[in-house]
Amino acid sequence: MVPSAAPGRWDGTEVMPYKEEGSAPFRDVTRQKLFAGGGDLDVELRYFEVGPGGYSTLERHQHAHLVVVTRGSGTVVVGSEVRTLGLHDLVHVPPLTWHQFLASPQEPLGFLCLVKVERDRPERPSAEQLAEIQSNPVVGAVVRV
Amino acid sequence: MVPSAAPGRWDGTEVMPYKEEGSAPFRDVTRQKLFAGGGDLDVELRYFEVGPGGYSTLERHQHAHLVVVTRGSGTVVVGSEVRTLGLHDLVHVPPLTWHQFLASPQEPLGFLCLVKVERDRPERPSAEQLAEIQSNPVVGAVVRV
Repeated sequence: MVPSAAPGRWDGTEVMPYKEEGSAPFRDVTRQKLFAGGGDLDVELRYFEVGPGGYSTLERHQHAHLVVVTRGSGTVVVGSEVRTLGLHDLVHVPPLTWHQFLASPQEPLGFLCLVKVERDRPERPSAEQLAEIQSNPVVGAVVRV
Repeated sequence: MVPSAAPGRWDGTEVMPYKEEGSAPFRDVTRQKLFAGGGDLDVELRYFEVGPGGYSTLERHQHAHLVVVTRGSGTVVVGSEVRTLGLHDLVHVPPLTWHQFLASPQEPLGFLCLVKVERDRPERPSAEQLAEIQSNPVVGAVVRV
């Protein structure tokens, strides 16, 4: 068992950088690994927290995400959709779908994110792909790169 | 995306009985299926809510559980351990480990529970197994059958 002593914190669980600084566009994101797989569950459970005004990298990959918001609020871009996010909202990111999580300006966005242990590396959009993503006015108004 | 309009409720998601009434010992438990697998994620995400003073069935199975508390408080029995549960506590139930979730007397216990889509059926303790489980004084003081 891994007790949670405070919102977004778990006993004995290290708060890590989201990614190496400068390796990809993102702002104010931390990562924690809560479960690394076990029994017949070949999945990892991570917790990401995006600080107020921060955002994850706009990316896509073959593996899927299952996300449950557990703290704060924000916005998510999944493919051609933009949705506001609040407590306990569930997001499924299908394979090869561009996605980005953005915290609200006033508060953090914290979410559990499930992935397979064995998974491919994220891909970032080329200039051409980015132009296409941004050509959707709803998405273009929200994504940060 | 499946938005959550209220604690323990998700849009378009049916609140179902935990199990058929009388099929096994339990008290005041509901079940919701939030994710049925998709992409490379061959897992189901369910939400269980145990009413104040209620409890799930004491059982075990080959498949593992990964649980995150998202509402209220209670107690969990996992093997020879008894732990109190609060918001965002994480519980891993390993294969073939007797377990039971109990809500506190004053408030419900709501939790997300992850399992493989393909999994074996739960097993309930025989009279002999139950006697052995209850011979542990810490566990015996808590389990309900």
